[in-house]
Amino acid sequence: MPDARPLITLLTDFGERDSFVASMKGVILSINSAVAIVDISHQIASHQIQEAGYFLKSCYRYFPEKAIHVAIVDPGVGTERRALLVAAAGSFFVGPDNGLFTEVLEQEEGAKVWQINNPQYRLETVGSTFDGRDVFAPAAAWLSKGVPPTFFGPVVHDPIRRSVAIPVWHEELLIGKIISIDRFGNLISNITARQVREFRAANGQTVEIHIGTYIINELVGSYSQGNRQTPSALINSSGNLEIFLQEESAACSLQVGVGKEVRLC
Amino acid sequence: MPDARPLITLLTDFGERDSFVASMKGVILSINSAVAIVDISHQIASHQIQEAGYFLKSCYRYFPEKAIHVAIVDPGVGTERRALLVAAAGSFFVGPDNGLFTEVLEQEEGAKVWQINNPQYRLETVGSTFDGRDVFAPAAAWLSKGVPPTFFGPVVHDPIRRSVAIPVWHEELLIGKIISIDRFGNLISNITARQVREFRAANGQTVEIHIGTYIINELVGSYSQGNRQTPSALINSSGNLEIFLQEESAACSLQVGVGKEVRLC
Amino acid sequence: MPDARPLITLLTDFGERDSFVASMKGVILSINSAVAIVDISHQIASHQIQEAGYFLKSCYRYFPEKAIHVAIVDPGVGTERRALLVAAAGSFFVGPDNGLFTEVLEQEEGAKVWQINNPQYRLETVGSTFDGRDVFAPAAAWLSKGVPPTFFGPVVHDPIRRSVAIPVWHEELLIGKIISIDRFGNLISNITARQVREFRAANGQTVEIHIGTYIINELVGSYSQGNRQTPSALINSSGNLEIFLQEESAACSLQVGVGKEVRLC
Repeated sequence: MPDARPLITLLTDFGERDSFVASMKGVILSINSAVAIVDISHQIASHQIQEAGYFLKSCYRYFPEKAIHVAIVDPGVGTERRALLVAAAGSFFVGPDNGLFTEVLEQEEGAKVWQINNPQYRLETVGSTFDGRDVFAPAAAWLSKGVPPTFFGPVVHDPIRRSVAIPVWHEELLIGKIISIDRFGNLISNITARQVREFRAANGQTVEIHIGTYIINELVGSYSQGNRQTPSALINSSGNLEIFLQEESAACSLQVGVGKEVRLC
Repeated sequence: MPDARPLITLLTDFGERDSFVASMKGVILSINSAVAIVDISHQIASHQIQEAGYFLKSCYRYFPEKAIHVAIVDPGVGTERRALLVAAAGSFFVGPDNGLFTEVLEQEEGAKVWQINNPQYRLETVGSTFDGRDVFAPAAAWLSKGVPPTFFGPVVHDPIRRSVAIPVWHEELLIGKIISIDRFGNLISNITARQVREFRAANGQTVEIHIGTYIINELVGSYSQGNRQTPSALINSSGNLEIFLQEESAACSLQVGVGKEVRLC
Repeated sequence: MPDARPLITLLTDFGERDSFVASMKGVILSINSAVAIVDISHQIASHQIQEAGYFLKSCYRYFPEKAIHVAIVDPGVGTERRALLVAAAGSFFVGPDNGLFTEVLEQEEGAKVWQINNPQYRLETVGSTFDGRDVFAPAAAWLSKGVPPTFFGPVVHDPIRRSVAIPVWHEELLIGKIISIDRFGNLISNITARQVREFRAANGQTVEIHIGTYIINELVGSYSQGNRQTPSALINSSGNLEIFLQEESAACSLQVGVGKEVRLC
């Protein structure tokens, strides 16, 4: 049985309107025409590394083994910031060294990191404004053809990690934040299912969720168990605590944006 | 000659900004890495089943035989609503039992419907907020690998059908509605080419189209035969009566939205 | 070694919301299920041929040899305007004869052009509102299966060329224009790297860029060398002179739109 078809995913803040993403795909397919390419998202808010990290965390485990995830939110393009190749969880991650892969590095034991600086695997171009096309796309394509990670450059022992917005304990309270708002206006917090379980265990199995002036007394199991007027909460499909209104935008109705505090009490 | 490459299409209201669609593609490619995936649209207005039905009707006949169309607009996710697999017109349709496939079931004789409830073909996850990833994507992927429809669950004899907005005869008039507005601002009605032909046959081959205060005296054959000031009408590429302004948005200029009445007089 | 997988790209003003693009992909895959399809952009501003020309110019060289680029911005659909097939730069281009391929024809020597009018290679449909699906998609798909260009129709010696907005010399000045604004709000002019080099050569290696009330004294090499308050300039990844603010939208902050004059002084 032949190997599965190689797979490269793309996650950027380039948008879908311009031809940036298409140029990357052209470069990839010029090197490996057999590869399947999947777009994760190109609508990351401009330069918002944290949002890209959440999206990547939400979906990378659902892709086949050996998938190569290219993530580019790169305000430092053209500076001395390194280009990275990460091997973790049976997958590969390619992108700038600016903290994009913090969640992956924290969740996956035994992750290995290399710098990508071998000129043999980059596009010969003048200029340094579009590393997505000239550095990351070719690296991913060569990797998909079986070039070993060690060929791309030296091992990196100190990849940059963002001080991820992690919920903090304040006496009896767990204080988190809204980190993303999805298409339906649902409010996604950085509080995880495990933290909710731990909170319950320490509080006689009860939990109250406070956001703004609202208090939610219990989690539900699905969106259909919520209602249109008052907010409900559930553990979403990425394993994060999420606050929602049924068939309405909680972000609009409750006037809540990214950064808003959420408390477990 | 080998079989054509298996093909799965996706039609959802998940948007392209979040990572929902990417997770579905990851699940599909993990089960069948050979499949081609085509996006129909992910910009269905949130929970608008009727619009999804129109989009599906507009394009499914153009796909190759055995194509598998996954359509997910699913306000009832997490409830007891059934997951369906429909075989019709040489194709398959996968999605929730909420009327999404009404047009397909009405147009295609001999359609067969099964429930998808065999746990063997769903993803093992906790939670019930994302059946697109956990139920529909794996069902489509297994189907693309040749698993017979009967393996997924029992036959369904009563799939839900929407009381589709069908034009109604009121004495001599045929009264329809605008059901979709496309990117160019063209106004798409639920009146079909066949109904226009029937109206003509009964009215000495003439037809007048009334929308708001406008009267259109005759259909044209292409957009280039319209003009920028007063609305024209034609049979669009999906076989529906459409009202337009040349190189302008009829929706904006005429201040017409979905639901507006259109009459043949 | 087998041939590389055939590749078709799509560049249209159809948007991603409606099912137009999906219908085209269905038609293509019905004729050639082995082909890879890449979207360049479907968000060209409605009927803006010039923007499509810039996007196409920016990326076609990055695709593999024999790639087939379908470009459809077609206000004249349904008129007598011809459908074209262009062979240039080892690639093919398919679209309406309205000047869309001006940049390709000007940059690539030895380009050959044919009309597409052989009914054998178009879809049998009534109506003439959707040549993307009925004419261009099938032509591209048959071409990807190896049908020779000459089979599609007669040679065309006079394809339409737009009077492309080319910078003009006015005494000592080179006067260009902003022709596109990218997702980041960067202002892309029609002045090329070569024109900047020629200007420098004639002016003691100096160049001043004037836009509105702003004067930029020198080009930088990357976005990271700019700043947030005053505009900087560089040669962008497509080889065009571009004006930008670091991590800000120059279009918003400077209140500059497409068509604005840019001068080299």
